[in-house]
Amino acid sequence: MAEATVNLSLAQVHQLSVDTLVHHGMALEHAESISRVITAGQRDECNSHGLYRLISCVDAIRKGKVVLDAVPEVEDVSLAITRVDAKFGFSQLAFDRGVESLIDKAHVIGIAALAVNNCYHFSALWPEVERIASAGLAGLAMTPSHSWVVPAGGTKPVYGTNPIAFAWPRPGMHPYVFDFATSATARGEIELHRRAGKKIPLGWALDANGLPTEDPEEALKGAMLAFGGHKGSALSAMIELMAGALIGDMLSSDSQEFDDGAKVTPCHGELLLAFSPKMFGGAGAASGMERAEAMFNSITSQGARLPSQRRFEARNRSIDNGVLIPEALYKDVLALTGR
Amino acid sequence: MAEATVNLSLAQVHQLSVDTLVHHGMALEHAESISRVITAGQRDECNSHGLYRLISCVDAIRKGKVVLDAVPEVEDVSLAITRVDAKFGFSQLAFDRGVESLIDKAHVIGIAALAVNNCYHFSALWPEVERIASAGLAGLAMTPSHSWVVPAGGTKPVYGTNPIAFAWPRPGMHPYVFDFATSATARGEIELHRRAGKKIPLGWALDANGLPTEDPEEALKGAMLAFGGHKGSALSAMIELMAGALIGDMLSSDSQEFDDGAKVTPCHGELLLAFSPKMFGGAGAASGMERAEAMFNSITSQGARLPSQRRFEARNRSIDNGVLIPEALYKDVLALTGR
Repeated sequence: MAEATVNLSLAQVHQLSVDTLVHHGMALEHAESISRVITAGQRDECNSHGLYRLISCVDAIRKGKVVLDAVPEVEDVSLAITRVDAKFGFSQLAFDRGVESLIDKAHVIGIAALAVNNCYHFSALWPEVERIASAGLAGLAMTPSHSWVVPAGGTKPVYGTNPIAFAWPRPGMHPYVFDFATSATARGEIELHRRAGKKIPLGWALDANGLPTEDPEEALKGAMLAFGGHKGSALSAMIELMAGALIGDMLSSDSQEFDDGAKVTPCHGELLLAFSPKMFGGAGAASGMERAEAMFNSITSQGARLPSQRRFEARNRSIDNGVLIPEALYKDVLALTGR
Repeated sequence: MAEATVNLSLAQVHQLSVDTLVHHGMALEHAESISRVITAGQRDECNSHGLYRLISCVDAIRKGKVVLDAVPEVEDVSLAITRVDAKFGFSQLAFDRGVESLIDKAHVIGIAALAVNNCYHFSALWPEVERIASAGLAGLAMTPSHSWVVPAGGTKPVYGTNPIAFAWPRPGMHPYVFDFATSATARGEIELHRRAGKKIPLGWALDANGLPTEDPEEALKGAMLAFGGHKGSALSAMIELMAGALIGDMLSSDSQEFDDGAKVTPCHGELLLAFSPKMFGGAGAASGMERAEAMFNSITSQGARLPSQRRFEARNRSIDNGVLIPEALYKDVLALTGR
């Protein structure tokens, strides 16, 4: 039997999200920024980053830690760096307030950085690097989380699931985009296995004694592993350093301590970089773009997929037909506003 | 029976390297720059990047492709970007000519980039990111190679072994440094297995039909795999784009075509980035540095190693006692100059 679903337009998804957040006391500008990201997640069928996220978002609001009417403060640090102090609000409005400056600077001097500090962060990074790519720039983004991941050769968690995202602009096409956690799997994936009573593969996690485990329950008490062994572990450390220490913000362990058991989405910083192929490439800029396209073609022509290909296919469908929300989820979201 | 070795001081290693390269027609400035890197490799017991490299270096010289007296041309692209056109010489002198500008710019505006174009590249990236870290900056470096690595889900090689290196400055201490190929293993490692008649582990390579193989012979005719599955593959693509397309230089497949079967070390570009923790961190800079140290401590205190720890231990030994070169290698190197 097919699951019962509700068909919503993207505008309806956005409005439902805004209404829910405003109902819970979120300032309208924040609600709009967050809802654009939630709508993008739903549109691209990244279901865990769609309307489903409103549930944990409202939970975070109810816990009273996030500042719902925080006014992000933009600081022009240098010709190449913009900083936005999110003032302990959610990250999305802070990003929106800083991204134009990031893009302008990258166009002028070829490379620029946006540091977002003191933000509660729960969203995927691809909407942000895609925003950068839409301006004809390459974008790179990274952020710590809470310390759940063990360093290679260790037994105790230090790193967060530390996502990294990258986008390369493709004129007239969706950009080349990836966005992945540097942990072997998402924490939610282990949780799903636990709920389903299923074993997890070896290589995902260690138990509380630092031994490899297939038991999701033990894994959640223990530590997750980085993807790709010591290399993924090293990258995860780099993300702590670049999106934490470099920008004078919390690392995953500091953020977890700051959370103090509330289990709210992590509060810390985010680093975004933008690069201008036009400025970097100089006389070779046009051939650089062509070589990139030739590489994409050599990937897809052998039947391999580009990282975000499924997501873009979903996007095209959703723009035409709206999205299908499971009825149970739709009811859960309506219930958040007592409907 | 212990292998016969020759004990050389670091000054002797450097001089042997310079003499060998000059004997083969290398301009002295190039020979000095290359020999500093070769000496650093030998000092840190990265043996494949030590005196051993002179053999392939001389082979490249003999093939007549590398310009031995290339004069690198430094271009001040913007307040944040320096470009060095290596003019088809080896990369090291070009890096040496550009790195001061990179460092100066990063100190002034917080982030800067150095693009090295048209260079023959054979060295590890850690000496370069360590140079950046020695100026109190975080350093990131990447470069393509020749297309030996298959994209995730594909069967034909597209990417190079594409190394990425990162360094974080630790005042009064060796920096935090990693430097790794984004392939599952080094090409030389497969070659070593072939020579020893040993199987390679599954996950390293595919055969010419795109099927997983444990046979090193078949692997060398087929394609290498990226580390960490689709995530490592995506990173490898990013390196092609950032250190190739972005800077208007060749990607790994272009570079391989340019090589035209000569099997010389790859000719292409390299991208280096430098970040100032002082400028990025602002009021939080000091606490950022402290949090980084706390993280390193949480790694080492549980018995895990930092990525370059063994290399730094070797460095300390070599500075005190010089290095031990296998006698056979020493004779091979002497033979390069007919001695």
